[in-house]
Amino acid sequence: MQIAMVGDKVVRIEELEPVYLDRGTFFGDGIYEVMRSYNGKIFALDEHLERFANGIGAIEIQGVDINATRSRVLRAFEKAGIANAKMYFHITRGSGLRDHLPDTNIKPNFFLTVTELEEDTRLKEKGVSVSTYPDIRWKRCDIKSLNLLPNVLARQDAAKKGCWEAVFVNDNGLITEGSSSAFFAVTGGKLQTAPLTANILPSVTRKYVIKSAKNIGLKVEEESLTPVQARTAAELFLAVTTKDIIPVVKFDGQAIADARPGKYTRQLIEEFKKFTK
Amino acid sequence: MQIAMVGDKVVRIEELEPVYLDRGTFFGDGIYEVMRSYNGKIFALDEHLERFANGIGAIEIQGVDINATRSRVLRAFEKAGIANAKMYFHITRGSGLRDHLPDTNIKPNFFLTVTELEEDTRLKEKGVSVSTYPDIRWKRCDIKSLNLLPNVLARQDAAKKGCWEAVFVNDNGLITEGSSSAFFAVTGGKLQTAPLTANILPSVTRKYVIKSAKNIGLKVEEESLTPVQARTAAELFLAVTTKDIIPVVKFDGQAIADARPGKYTRQLIEEFKKFTK
Repeated sequence: MQIAMVGDKVVRIEELEPVYLDRGTFFGDGIYEVMRSYNGKIFALDEHLERFANGIGAIEIQGVDINATRSRVLRAFEKAGIANAKMYFHITRGSGLRDHLPDTNIKPNFFLTVTELEEDTRLKEKGVSVSTYPDIRWKRCDIKSLNLLPNVLARQDAAKKGCWEAVFVNDNGLITEGSSSAFFAVTGGKLQTAPLTANILPSVTRKYVIKSAKNIGLKVEEESLTPVQARTAAELFLAVTTKDIIPVVKFDGQAIADARPGKYTRQLIEEFKKFTK
Repeated sequence: MQIAMVGDKVVRIEELEPVYLDRGTFFGDGIYEVMRSYNGKIFALDEHLERFANGIGAIEIQGVDINATRSRVLRAFEKAGIANAKMYFHITRGSGLRDHLPDTNIKPNFFLTVTELEEDTRLKEKGVSVSTYPDIRWKRCDIKSLNLLPNVLARQDAAKKGCWEAVFVNDNGLITEGSSSAFFAVTGGKLQTAPLTANILPSVTRKYVIKSAKNIGLKVEEESLTPVQARTAAELFLAVTTKDIIPVVKFDGQAIADARPGKYTRQLIEEFKKFTK
């Protein structure tokens, strides 16, 4: 008899709900998005859905209707009725007995959560500490897939060091991005961040940060930094969907400037807000 | 109200079974093993459990009792009563609202399946075709984690080319291993395979293949091959837990020798059997 065990419980495989045989768990074979709303409006929904569609295309998941996905997102958001919500969703290739090669008739699984955003104004006011971690990730970090174990390991390492986020440093000694954020420096009167060709996620928040910089007349240079350059930068910050811009005041244990959120960072936070209204 | 959506169904998050919030799905934050039994006996159980324990340690999942895991495996195997079974199990860090950093009180999730092995003697008799795929995986392929999307992509690519397995080629132009197998060549009267330092899995089957080679007096060289070397090898084969040794008769569309399983490969298949009795 073919059986499964869930914890200590033995069940027949046929009795399992499909979620137990989800390729999302077996292989991380799926694409996800995280979005937020500001005062009852989802921010940059189209951009997130476009990136999501690109990911689905890149890993060739069949049978995903992006318009249906948009409808589900909107329906869930409306149903939840949370003004400042965090929305997470993923689509996996589907469920089936574990085999790298999926059945040809497999159907994708959709899962979503809408939760209350925990706004922590202190993060923005005081800034956070970051530590570095080797970028051991795969070569397709442009794909927002469910393969995120290195990100978890980096984040665990940061937490042990009392840091809020880990920043990846690749084999060439260059900073790519945070474990779940984009990374920026203000140095020499310019905003500097890794280019999209540096095996990083095409972050939606990153795009709006760059727009914000242009709006305030701050020149933008897409060129990767070394940790040494980061430590001596005038300002550092992270860009995250759920929190937009978070100042970084300590990098690998070293204070950045006067260890307080920088002038441009604060200006960018204000400028960014205009997009969210 | 914080809600979730499973397909089109809206539910309260509190009503979700823990499996829906499994970090195995959100992050691939777990370790797995695949084992098989031969005629009612699980092959190399201790080695698999040892590697599993190493993986759990490497990603620092807390609260896993390896002896309890062994007991579960044995209980499930007995319950299933399948003489030639494929056993899969994983342990993830646990369930919770999605956050890279887990709750400190999170409890690991255990999942296992026992299924009938599909023995396909033709594979061993006729051999299989393999194709190459860039090794885009992360830098810790020694950890048998649930982050397997590149393996799925490689396997999909192979299937499109009419091949049974994909073999990864790294940035240095060297073959590392198959998407779910170890890779071997017989060349110059020696058995050759990538060393464990080449960012590959410490495959249990690989270990028994090397033992088998020594038993039949075939010299073993742990040194990576290039695709050009593989194409001109006298013999090629794959090592997979569920099927032990599978001859490779075509490599990137080119026949290997006379396109039939080689002499040493057949000898190794026979020698390997002795371990499984």
